Amino acid sequence: MPFITIKVLEGKTIEQKRSLVQKMSKVVAETFDVEQDKIFIFFEDLKKEDYGKQGDLALYLENS
Amino acid sequence: MPFITIKVLEGKTIEQKRSLVQKMSKVVAETFDVEQDKIFIFFEDLKKEDYGKQGDLALYLENS
Amino acid sequence: MPFITIKVLEGKTIEQKRSLVQKMSKVVAETFDVEQDKIFIFFEDLKKEDYGKQGDLALYLENS
Amino acid sequence: MPFITIKVLEGKTIEQKRSLVQKMSKVVAETFDVEQDKIFIFFEDLKKEDYGKQGDLALYLENS
Amino acid sequence: MPFITIKVLEGKTIEQKRSLVQKMSKVVAETFDVEQDKIFIFFEDLKKEDYGKQGDLALYLENS
Amino acid sequence: MPFITIKVLEGKTIEQKRSLVQKMSKVVAETFDVEQDKIFIFFEDLKKEDYGKQGDLALYLENS
Repeated sequence: MPFITIKVLEGKTIEQKRSLVQKMSKVVAETFDVEQDKIFIFFEDLKKEDYGKQGDLALYLENS
Repeated sequence: MPFITIKVLEGKTIEQKRSLVQKMSKVVAETFDVEQDKIFIFFEDLKKEDYGKQGDLALYLENS
Repeated sequence: MPFITIKVLEGKTIEQKRSLVQKMSKVVAETFDVEQDKIFIFFEDLKKEDYGKQGDLALYLENS
Repeated sequence: MPFITIKVLEGKTIEQKRSLVQKMSKVVAETFDVEQDKIFIFFEDLKKEDYGKQGDLALYLENS
Repeated sequence: MPFITIKVLEGKTIEQKRSLVQKMSKVVAETFDVEQDKIFIFFEDLKKEDYGKQGDLALYLENS
Repeated sequence: MPFITIKVLEGKTIEQKRSLVQKMSKVVAETFDVEQDKIFIFFEDLKKEDYGKQGDLALYLENS
């Protein structure tokens, strides 16, 4: 505990995900006063055709 | 806000998903009195071998 | 199928939620070609002190 | 009702998932006094590069 | 691993939840060949006014 | 994007949650190269009677 789910547009590299797990685990452990081996983190990659915002699919939006 | 997650059997087309985002964003904006660019929608495709109902995997059920 | 989860800031009335279920079920049934009794919708109310955006808790943000 | 989501490291076979759905549906039906056709189960496979624990990605941990 | 989330209509007793955790942990451990202390189970209680099915809120449906 | 859900045992203070949002937003923005106002964080408090581990409810486990 805690259990953290990160839903993010696909495209982040394994190195970015690894770096985020390392930094996030430290920040959570320090702020919530828990040990790092009690922290679980899950990434969920999201395709642009599965992500709707501003009334449309991100696939069809320029700035996404 | 709000954030909407739609878990659905795989097989819906991008056009169907786009149409649903367009219609759903309107309905949510109107009913919850929020702007469309505050509404986020995520699709999660589900394979038949990852979906259990009626005590079995949908993969083995005729009507699914 | 599908299963829809709607995470929204607390404060929406039961009437608003009921109206959204009624309209959303129609839109999903029509767009995904499924019967309404196969559509499940879950609301998750979110408190401002449990919602972080723009680097802070919504509780401390004026426009939220 | 209920709706059960099972997040698990990828690699479980369809037979294992089928067996789990069969056994789990019985246990839930019996314990929560509901009929099996009211129980829905979803599997979410997780890649080692999307799973963080002990401050690192499971991909880089020996015991995972 | 695995991580199991059970969304259920509010009203189940702590004893029922405890019994389900005990039985479910055994079934998962046996079927997925994992140790029980690697299995995490989360209950999410759902109010009838937050649960939509058959095109309406469960609160207004007789059989729910 | 990204959208982060943090499921944690109830009892963390609003100050702890605020501090975590502030630190986590920085770490995510830096590591994933996104702006802070594109990052959304949701806390989900979990009661001990809704949390199963080691084959039992956390409510009945000493070390939880």
